[in-house]
Amino acid sequence: MLIRSNWGDEMQVYLDNAATSQKKPEAVFLAMENFFKQINCNPGRAGYELSLTAGRKVMETRERLARFFNMKEPNEVVFTQNITVALNIALKGLLRQGDHVLITGLEHNAVVRPLKALEKDRNISYSIMPTDPQGQVDPVEAAKLIQPDTRMIVATHASNVMGTLVPIEELGQLAAEYGLDFVVDTAQTAGCYPVDYKRLGATVVAFTGHKHLLGPMGIGGFCVSREAAKRMKPLYEGGTGSISDREVQPDFLPDQFESGTLNTLGIVGLGAAVDYLEQAGLEEIRAKEEKLTGKLLAGLQELPGVIIYGPQDATRQTGTVAINIQDVDNAELSFVLDKKFGIMTRPGLHCAPIAHRTMGTFPEGVLRISIGHFTTEEEVDYLLSSLQKVVDAI
Amino acid sequence: MLIRSNWGDEMQVYLDNAATSQKKPEAVFLAMENFFKQINCNPGRAGYELSLTAGRKVMETRERLARFFNMKEPNEVVFTQNITVALNIALKGLLRQGDHVLITGLEHNAVVRPLKALEKDRNISYSIMPTDPQGQVDPVEAAKLIQPDTRMIVATHASNVMGTLVPIEELGQLAAEYGLDFVVDTAQTAGCYPVDYKRLGATVVAFTGHKHLLGPMGIGGFCVSREAAKRMKPLYEGGTGSISDREVQPDFLPDQFESGTLNTLGIVGLGAAVDYLEQAGLEEIRAKEEKLTGKLLAGLQELPGVIIYGPQDATRQTGTVAINIQDVDNAELSFVLDKKFGIMTRPGLHCAPIAHRTMGTFPEGVLRISIGHFTTEEEVDYLLSSLQKVVDAI
Repeated sequence: MLIRSNWGDEMQVYLDNAATSQKKPEAVFLAMENFFKQINCNPGRAGYELSLTAGRKVMETRERLARFFNMKEPNEVVFTQNITVALNIALKGLLRQGDHVLITGLEHNAVVRPLKALEKDRNISYSIMPTDPQGQVDPVEAAKLIQPDTRMIVATHASNVMGTLVPIEELGQLAAEYGLDFVVDTAQTAGCYPVDYKRLGATVVAFTGHKHLLGPMGIGGFCVSREAAKRMKPLYEGGTGSISDREVQPDFLPDQFESGTLNTLGIVGLGAAVDYLEQAGLEEIRAKEEKLTGKLLAGLQELPGVIIYGPQDATRQTGTVAINIQDVDNAELSFVLDKKFGIMTRPGLHCAPIAHRTMGTFPEGVLRISIGHFTTEEEVDYLLSSLQKVVDAI
Repeated sequence: MLIRSNWGDEMQVYLDNAATSQKKPEAVFLAMENFFKQINCNPGRAGYELSLTAGRKVMETRERLARFFNMKEPNEVVFTQNITVALNIALKGLLRQGDHVLITGLEHNAVVRPLKALEKDRNISYSIMPTDPQGQVDPVEAAKLIQPDTRMIVATHASNVMGTLVPIEELGQLAAEYGLDFVVDTAQTAGCYPVDYKRLGATVVAFTGHKHLLGPMGIGGFCVSREAAKRMKPLYEGGTGSISDREVQPDFLPDQFESGTLNTLGIVGLGAAVDYLEQAGLEEIRAKEEKLTGKLLAGLQELPGVIIYGPQDATRQTGTVAINIQDVDNAELSFVLDKKFGIMTRPGLHCAPIAHRTMGTFPEGVLRISIGHFTTEEEVDYLLSSLQKVVDAI
């Protein structure tokens, strides 16, 4: 048992940014407050001024995201509750009976569980592209897995467990070469790393609004070109406020995939967040996080008994770092960090059993420390000194 | 052209509550603000205190809704982005190849469009239960439409166009008698009319959080018993923070249907709203709206040239009233009410072409005036006097 007497103080250090960013730019809340108190009408459902204003607010966010992901037009950005639903729409909307899919060895259950369902329902199959224990995906070896019935490559942009960046540009080229659909999960990168739909040659780029994009929870979506959307079936249908005389789903973007009332408040908040990111500059944001990640990795490397997973190189991974301490259960470690030091981390399997198999940490898992935009040097120092105390106490 | 010189003043009167309630109880915003600024962690994804607190907040709302809809346990309440997604989960989760479905003549496209998709995908078929132009559904005649392959009755609790209340208890009995699933759409009633899952003998009760329930947009869901859920397939799969070592979707409630990050902020707001409703008392809320609806109907009946649809009886309909003015286009009427009088209403087809066919108002539509919890007598008076001015000016 690790729990000892009072080591800690009252500090609260949030290092679970891979689950959600906790702190947001001030403009995010203000935009939501303003919308909620001044507007709060259902966008695009009527013609009165305040409903149109709500519609314009939604369009504003769409435009910002379209620019952010380099889409041709704002309507190529579709909103969903979260990136999981977005990925489900992409996979179930594109894959047909008997299709074969390539995935990385780092995929989240947001990809794997829908594929498992499709195995049953549509007899699809998938292969895991060669991925080393540090999470490096090998596109050359991956090409050898392509079969005549292979239709799609699905890749996370970075591991949600150990942060390893995936060579999505090369995978995009591979997909293009073989005429495959290419679906990219940017849950761990959008808002910190550039994601360019066109440059990637992607079919679908799925995003979450509440992590590095710094919006609230409850909003995500995907980017899809008008052409690709024509091949994609919606996952749910319903009222769209458009062609209301028709009993079939509209076949145009974004209505094709956006039925029912949107999380307008979330969209407004996300819009303010993306505006903040544009102004702050993605390169600056990334540089700051890279520096902090480097500091964290260097500090961890000096701690005896600490096992670090992943590339251990801030230029090849995000600010998400996976560790274990020899002979210490990671759940207990996370518990102690929270209780004694006020440090919030996440132990276990992180909804990514495949990634843990790749890492060799299945089923015991790891402790995940994930830095975010508002993480400070002091917080990293405090984490390192706290871990030092834990190590000393073993 | 109806537009004349300045009749109006600066008043803003919101009468589009059937699309969303605009004003909310103060506690709703305060709860969201508190969550956003003090907590804002991803619930159920880690073990640290603040994540557990977020999880407790979600559970609190689940508990309140479970009480509200009379469910056996809080986990029988599932959250989705909106009621449209909830209805899609119910229909697609329960209906199998070749099934036949009965619907009312009042259904929203949130029901009809998924059924149209299922016609194609699973060869299902549906029949519309006899519904008169005022929206009265006849359960006795409906029984005659039941075929050997009939598996489900889907009914809205009230028309979203003319407010007519549907005899859902009788339809529930019919479903029970023939062993059919019973899916109820409470978009227009929950928060104003009692909805008792057990008493209805329902399979699924779908709800929206942002209308009469007075929560924010972006949150809805459904109630389903543990037994019924066993027969229901999820529409989307993904990370649930549970059994993370497994690559298949959990088969227990609510995780079975709740993949990815929830709209936690929306759930917290909805929780505060349901608390408000519990304290205010549903009977009192309904009595107030019934009185206002009566006043509105009586006033409309006195206006020459105004055609009123629906039962014209506040005890047999919600506060949603459909009208037309002879020889006036309803879109133009709505426009004038907004521009000249600051009154927000909704013209057209209200995402319910079937309802308009039932009413005999397809494809020209109606003007919908929908009262909500915060509508005042003065606002109804103002609407009536404004309509009088419009009528006088024709």
